[in-house]
Amino acid sequence: MKNQEFKPIKAIKIEKGIKTSELVDKMGDIGFNARYISQSSKILEEAILDKECRLFLGFAGAMVPGGMKQIVIDIIDNNYVDVFVTTGANLTHDLIEAIGFKHYQGTTNISDEELNEKGIDRIYNVFMKNEVYVKLEKFFEENFDELSKAKSPREFLYLLGKIIPTKERSILKACYEKNIPIFCPALTDSGIGLMVWGQLIRKKKIDLDFFDDLAKMIDIAWGVKKSAILYIGGGVPKNYIQQALQFSKAASYGVQITTDRAEPGGSSGAPLKEGISWGKMSTNAKFSDVFCDATIALPLIYSSLLDSVGKIEKKEL
Amino acid sequence: MKNQEFKPIKAIKIEKGIKTSELVDKMGDIGFNARYISQSSKILEEAILDKECRLFLGFAGAMVPGGMKQIVIDIIDNNYVDVFVTTGANLTHDLIEAIGFKHYQGTTNISDEELNEKGIDRIYNVFMKNEVYVKLEKFFEENFDELSKAKSPREFLYLLGKIIPTKERSILKACYEKNIPIFCPALTDSGIGLMVWGQLIRKKKIDLDFFDDLAKMIDIAWGVKKSAILYIGGGVPKNYIQQALQFSKAASYGVQITTDRAEPGGSSGAPLKEGISWGKMSTNAKFSDVFCDATIALPLIYSSLLDSVGKIEKKEL
Amino acid sequence: MKNQEFKPIKAIKIEKGIKTSELVDKMGDIGFNARYISQSSKILEEAILDKECRLFLGFAGAMVPGGMKQIVIDIIDNNYVDVFVTTGANLTHDLIEAIGFKHYQGTTNISDEELNEKGIDRIYNVFMKNEVYVKLEKFFEENFDELSKAKSPREFLYLLGKIIPTKERSILKACYEKNIPIFCPALTDSGIGLMVWGQLIRKKKIDLDFFDDLAKMIDIAWGVKKSAILYIGGGVPKNYIQQALQFSKAASYGVQITTDRAEPGGSSGAPLKEGISWGKMSTNAKFSDVFCDATIALPLIYSSLLDSVGKIEKKEL
Amino acid sequence: MKNQEFKPIKAIKIEKGIKTSELVDKMGDIGFNARYISQSSKILEEAILDKECRLFLGFAGAMVPGGMKQIVIDIIDNNYVDVFVTTGANLTHDLIEAIGFKHYQGTTNISDEELNEKGIDRIYNVFMKNEVYVKLEKFFEENFDELSKAKSPREFLYLLGKIIPTKERSILKACYEKNIPIFCPALTDSGIGLMVWGQLIRKKKIDLDFFDDLAKMIDIAWGVKKSAILYIGGGVPKNYIQQALQFSKAASYGVQITTDRAEPGGSSGAPLKEGISWGKMSTNAKFSDVFCDATIALPLIYSSLLDSVGKIEKKEL
Repeated sequence: MKNQEFKPIKAIKIEKGIKTSELVDKMGDIGFNARYISQSSKILEEAILDKECRLFLGFAGAMVPGGMKQIVIDIIDNNYVDVFVTTGANLTHDLIEAIGFKHYQGTTNISDEELNEKGIDRIYNVFMKNEVYVKLEKFFEENFDELSKAKSPREFLYLLGKIIPTKERSILKACYEKNIPIFCPALTDSGIGLMVWGQLIRKKKIDLDFFDDLAKMIDIAWGVKKSAILYIGGGVPKNYIQQALQFSKAASYGVQITTDRAEPGGSSGAPLKEGISWGKMSTNAKFSDVFCDATIALPLIYSSLLDSVGKIEKKEL
Repeated sequence: MKNQEFKPIKAIKIEKGIKTSELVDKMGDIGFNARYISQSSKILEEAILDKECRLFLGFAGAMVPGGMKQIVIDIIDNNYVDVFVTTGANLTHDLIEAIGFKHYQGTTNISDEELNEKGIDRIYNVFMKNEVYVKLEKFFEENFDELSKAKSPREFLYLLGKIIPTKERSILKACYEKNIPIFCPALTDSGIGLMVWGQLIRKKKIDLDFFDDLAKMIDIAWGVKKSAILYIGGGVPKNYIQQALQFSKAASYGVQITTDRAEPGGSSGAPLKEGISWGKMSTNAKFSDVFCDATIALPLIYSSLLDSVGKIEKKEL
Repeated sequence: MKNQEFKPIKAIKIEKGIKTSELVDKMGDIGFNARYISQSSKILEEAILDKECRLFLGFAGAMVPGGMKQIVIDIIDNNYVDVFVTTGANLTHDLIEAIGFKHYQGTTNISDEELNEKGIDRIYNVFMKNEVYVKLEKFFEENFDELSKAKSPREFLYLLGKIIPTKERSILKACYEKNIPIFCPALTDSGIGLMVWGQLIRKKKIDLDFFDDLAKMIDIAWGVKKSAILYIGGGVPKNYIQQALQFSKAASYGVQITTDRAEPGGSSGAPLKEGISWGKMSTNAKFSDVFCDATIALPLIYSSLLDSVGKIEKKEL
Repeated sequence: MKNQEFKPIKAIKIEKGIKTSELVDKMGDIGFNARYISQSSKILEEAILDKECRLFLGFAGAMVPGGMKQIVIDIIDNNYVDVFVTTGANLTHDLIEAIGFKHYQGTTNISDEELNEKGIDRIYNVFMKNEVYVKLEKFFEENFDELSKAKSPREFLYLLGKIIPTKERSILKACYEKNIPIFCPALTDSGIGLMVWGQLIRKKKIDLDFFDDLAKMIDIAWGVKKSAILYIGGGVPKNYIQQALQFSKAASYGVQITTDRAEPGGSSGAPLKEGISWGKMSTNAKFSDVFCDATIALPLIYSSLLDSVGKIEKKEL
């Protein structure tokens, strides 16, 4: 083993008041998963600074209730993200906060039966009042005429971002302001979807073309010179980006944060390198898989990016 | 501790030639996860034999490449399932086999770079030839006029089941024959979705109303007297059923097979009991969470059901 | 891809009354983890039938409370195992059942506070009465003169197997009868260890040479022509066998059943192939890692072995 | 739901140059696992500042190769830890670095066969030269006369800490200097154990009483007014502390960092609250389970402790 081949592990030494970005740097000198936190920061830094590269963010899980909303907004405000693909759930929870509701720090020590009686919905250790749906319905009733002008899910979400209140900042508004397209292939599988359904049964009309979104998504993937992927969780957001890459060109940079396992064969737990076989990831891509709850990994990685890159110029699609 | 309260663990004794259903029974006498395999069989048995109850099957993951296709077909043929919710991926792989292609037993010992060169796509330890997409495209070209008559994703999948070749049995055909509705909320996020896109860029037309499916799904959930859920993997299929239950009435029986973790807060890893807080699962429901790769758990549970229940009469929705 | 290289996935078809061994066979034709269940059976079958090979069983976890005791006894009675390495916990629970106590099917729905009040100890969904320790202490008081003749942990466990009651069959007795050495490197880290301590504070004496066990373990590993390993869980049992192989010769066959993850770098979650780098596993070894709760995987694998191999002649060390 | 009962989630807002301790604080305002990072810091802070409380550190896994050595040394130097329980592996790797060797940043992209040829041992993504064992053996040959004066494993490790070179700081030396007892119940299951064996086959003698350590451990647990536990990984270190608490008095504070799962019933994956049923954890204890790779979680928690508590006075046992 030549010394130039393998760098020695340098045990992390922490000084008082250590900055998060310094800690992430030091993680790059050790082993196991901490190292991938650092490596992911470096890869994303390079991708963001690469003017030819556009970043596709796949954002699954219950990250808004989990407290990651502001970081995603900041990522958008800093112009790191060029295409945003997410679940209806994350957008619904974003909207719920935008219209004045909150999520709460819950506990695993209360039974779900008791929560049910109290009208509280559980998302592991986060709680939400079930009454949000009443006000959510009202919001859609009042705004449906405007929203129903949309011809595709992404237009619908653009309009939603436009009319959403501004008191509490939201991902929907941030994407609207930055003109970042939001793709939500399973929009009908969400509270927002249900609210639309609630209008349709009141004889309102809407006609969203989900295939128009797919066409747009592949167009974008074809149009970019180079692409980077950042998957927070797996699910539909990951797969939707992956398939666009497969049918256009392979990604040059990739970071994935998930706790799912690879062995059962699902897309969510598949390591990024599997994408190489499919042509979704370039054979000379730089990529890193982080096995960690995103509520821990994402703040670390973002802190590092903020200190090293800061805000960049918006890239055009 | 009264003996009537807690049953003693009875260590599993295996005799030569033991039937799978006998083994599953014995698993009911022990601890840890094996016990939940047995418990799940019993719950599903009760749900299937309950004439007032309808079963919603949420089927995610890469279960067709993984070799679970025939069991799902048999479950459908035996009239256990009343509503089928799945990913576009499972349907795409089902279709791929129906038009004459195969999946292969791969290995983790070949690099993804080498597979890429050979035109092989990896799904963990399962391989697929990339050339399937050529024939898949041809299939859609030849059949798009018929398929494009569909007005909703479930009609589209019904027509697909109708025209699909019969030489190799498929889930699509089984559902078609039994008139089981297939819901696939993220249809555009799949090979099938991409094939539709491939026709649309050739100026063909299709207009699928995804909200019509949502309305139908909730109608069905409202219409049934009692409901049972079986989640193989999580993802959109699970959440789509969960939200229909939340907006209609709570499930009476539930079984979930997943290896995802609860701690990161995602829907896929959430234990079934969380559904109680939301009103998705009845407070007096019988339910069981199995932490196991579905390729192991499902054959065990199905073997037990086949021996105890066999084929039942089709229930009407 | 040549057809001779990769075998097509053959979806599992289950017939009524299917034997467990038939199901395991069929699992060999599919993907993901089910395939490794079948593969593990085949590897162990070959190892057991290989007259030059000796099997080292590493048995961690809470497998006796979990209900796996009888299968391990049968594996011993069938002469599959030549060296048994385990935790003090498994032996303590084995002894607890041998002196007349039971483990119980518990539930995750009772709080640990309530269990504490009732004098019940929880092992996930298995319960044990805390009063077992009183009788356990009495057993050691009555038998300590005999037990204290032992000069090493394995002699101590041999004597324990000799004097243990026979009414309820036990692993300790089975190993005693078959003269299978039991290695328990962390014996002081267990209920049995605590019981010995309980005698020592009553001024009794015992002098167990833990390094004598280590010497014997390495002697055995050196002496065998070929070795096979079966790890049920990781921990000390796995590592103790691994290090003996490293300092003697690499294993020819290996099966590991665990749900631990590889990424955090611990020995318990390390895939078997890592052993190749260390020289613990032969470069041409046949091995298989099963990601599954052992209470599910072990009965499947053993059922297959029982039908294919049955009882064999005892091999000499 | 009253507002006083449940605090709203406050999405993390990261400013440039954010300190790690500030980030950890903010994690206390959100959900999922990040929250437990913060909660763990607060619990440990309280435990460390509680003058009646003594901290038992259970340190498993391959944390020294993973790069956590210096943090553990700093924890010892800051007088946070009063009793140290670990695996032979961690001590062996600590010793290996102390006598001049290094661990290296490896990669998962090199095959284990190739590593074997090159004489490199893999610990996931960390590498070690196999030649360390030659120098390790020499070290033991030169120092065995001194080491063999020990009458118990903890005395042996104390002497090892005494004679170990000082050029590279080590855990062994830090414990020696602070007179922190090191318990290593499975010492024979390690490289150090093997080195002792290597001397014994050269007719050297040593007589270590492992039950003397157990007696001492329980004495300490009895003697302290209050106890706190910090488990980094599970295995023998965790269980050895747990059983000492069970046979003395329940812990008042607890933090556990592991990625093991609870469902298979093993001690390593058992949540801390299970300890309440056994009387290992007090019914009114403050405790927190962190599901995270320790190479990520530990630096975060320690950074927070360093900023909030700094160095404290050594507590006496």
